[in-house]
Amino acid sequence: MKLTQTVKKGGCAAKVPALILREILAGVKFPPKIPGVEVDGDHFDDAAIFKINEEIAAVQTLDFFTPIVDDPEDFGAIAAANALSDVYAMGGRPKTCMAILAAPLAFLEPALIQKVLQGACDTIKRSGSSLVGGHSIDDDTLKFGLSVMGLIDPKKIWTNSKAKVGDKLILTKPLGTGAICAGIKKQELFESDFQEAIQSMKRLNNILDFLSEDEQKHIHSATDITGFGLLGHSYQMAQASNVSLKFKIESVPVFKEAFKCIEKGFLTKAHKNNEEYTMGKVHFSEEINPSEKLITFDPQTSGGLLLSVDPQACEEVIRKLSTDFPGTSVVGEVQGKNKYDVYVEK
Amino acid sequence: MKLTQTVKKGGCAAKVPALILREILAGVKFPPKIPGVEVDGDHFDDAAIFKINEEIAAVQTLDFFTPIVDDPEDFGAIAAANALSDVYAMGGRPKTCMAILAAPLAFLEPALIQKVLQGACDTIKRSGSSLVGGHSIDDDTLKFGLSVMGLIDPKKIWTNSKAKVGDKLILTKPLGTGAICAGIKKQELFESDFQEAIQSMKRLNNILDFLSEDEQKHIHSATDITGFGLLGHSYQMAQASNVSLKFKIESVPVFKEAFKCIEKGFLTKAHKNNEEYTMGKVHFSEEINPSEKLITFDPQTSGGLLLSVDPQACEEVIRKLSTDFPGTSVVGEVQGKNKYDVYVEK
Repeated sequence: MKLTQTVKKGGCAAKVPALILREILAGVKFPPKIPGVEVDGDHFDDAAIFKINEEIAAVQTLDFFTPIVDDPEDFGAIAAANALSDVYAMGGRPKTCMAILAAPLAFLEPALIQKVLQGACDTIKRSGSSLVGGHSIDDDTLKFGLSVMGLIDPKKIWTNSKAKVGDKLILTKPLGTGAICAGIKKQELFESDFQEAIQSMKRLNNILDFLSEDEQKHIHSATDITGFGLLGHSYQMAQASNVSLKFKIESVPVFKEAFKCIEKGFLTKAHKNNEEYTMGKVHFSEEINPSEKLITFDPQTSGGLLLSVDPQACEEVIRKLSTDFPGTSVVGEVQGKNKYDVYVEK
Repeated sequence: MKLTQTVKKGGCAAKVPALILREILAGVKFPPKIPGVEVDGDHFDDAAIFKINEEIAAVQTLDFFTPIVDDPEDFGAIAAANALSDVYAMGGRPKTCMAILAAPLAFLEPALIQKVLQGACDTIKRSGSSLVGGHSIDDDTLKFGLSVMGLIDPKKIWTNSKAKVGDKLILTKPLGTGAICAGIKKQELFESDFQEAIQSMKRLNNILDFLSEDEQKHIHSATDITGFGLLGHSYQMAQASNVSLKFKIESVPVFKEAFKCIEKGFLTKAHKNNEEYTMGKVHFSEEINPSEKLITFDPQTSGGLLLSVDPQACEEVIRKLSTDFPGTSVVGEVQGKNKYDVYVEK
């Protein structure tokens, strides 16, 4: 059974579009923020943080989606890495995970669901956290993900609201999973074409494990790049930090097959939604071609972290990460608030 | 739009049946339990607990399901109360909630989704916790729930594994939401017929707020009664505690319309699944009639707590809870491990 053929939309491309979400949320009267809530959904941060005392805070996040690849173990591993990423994006360490499973029992073999869980368990093990339960329902289409609880020192929280003018922007994984997964779904790619992207999506964003305390301090702001694409999440960081971000498109890492997929028209609805979401907020210089624009809107599943880093620590951070995060690059810089939130140049 | 008409199975009746879940999980190699994990899925407990230090532990849970009622605010409120219940069932206090939303954007108006969220937000507010984010996907059918993080004193955790021989069993809400919701779905009930059950499902299981420290201590074990029904969850408690539970069927509180619904054949697949799940584990005395058997298998959505209470505190606990939890009753007692895990008598 080809898992991707059982669903209409795969991975983060199935997210509720940001503009619709905003419209829905605008009409809701939320409960008050209780003491201890340090970070919540106000700035589209990746996870929420509840301060327990001066030394410790809990990080909470959840993420789940439909199959984006056909191999069930890969799917489980990618969904787990993607969910855990939100904890890493805040500078936290995951501790306990709960599985979110919606499975069409009528046509999915238990053995296949087992493989999804096994892929997730192997990834959870690598993260040093435990699987402590979950919730499963019988549904029309397969969906899998995790709710994760992590811990963090409240003095060392990364949010998307502290990018500083003069910082360099580092991206830790190449872009292009949206177009590549669309190609997988169309069954027009060879397995060898998408292995680079699959390995990348399975990779944990555990950059903390590779950086010294001092290097960690030089990361002023962070977010993970997922469904809203590089520009969607960059726009959120620019707004939250009250700065503008400038990207050099030629420095942005892209999977080998991604442009080929884009040129063949392997796109998702999220490419269009992400373009609409950032309309009027992003300025492209004239030399940027249509494929380059599309890669900046490409919805990422288990994408990399976008880090806003003190320029003096930049080289060392790249050096420490480059072995385990191939493609890690300086992709731009933080500038003072300007007319647009994000600039993309050649 | 009648929400219940948009889905095949409603509420906790849509859970993956326990036997299938067990088969799936049996084949999975789980990651090791890291230090700090006090309670995980081993005993089908309601939530997981991670001990942060000697004074404080985090409680984590998640729950979501399809519409079981037609009113979107009621649905959101019930889904939220149901998810929060898992924290209360451990003796914890909820702090932060994240929304789990799968919505068919093609035919559900944003205004309707807003109402679901509003019902949830009002319930979260009553619980004294905050909504701090969430994850939403575009899906074929509406599903909603919460992932909840709460806090608890590690010395005061209730699990389902500490029921003591001689304890009295208290149930805090009547049974019958499965059959009543099946009746709502069939559109064969008047609104007045099911208001008692809807109000009950919207009620928080925040019994801690009504009991003194001393009374809380006399609750040796607790679980909330949800999809696996009174007997499914009782069997889990009996197994985890290495005891047998004996119920007096005539003491078990049941919603006014529930037996009428059962007699009209308003059943769910979960009634059958729950019977199979407990087959050979439960002994019914001869006088128990078929409707009474079915009510013990009835899958509850946002059901009550089953408490195993020191007999000397029993009367006082009932007195404190009875105003806010109408129907709260002593329904049975804990006995030494016998041939069957659960006994149901007249």
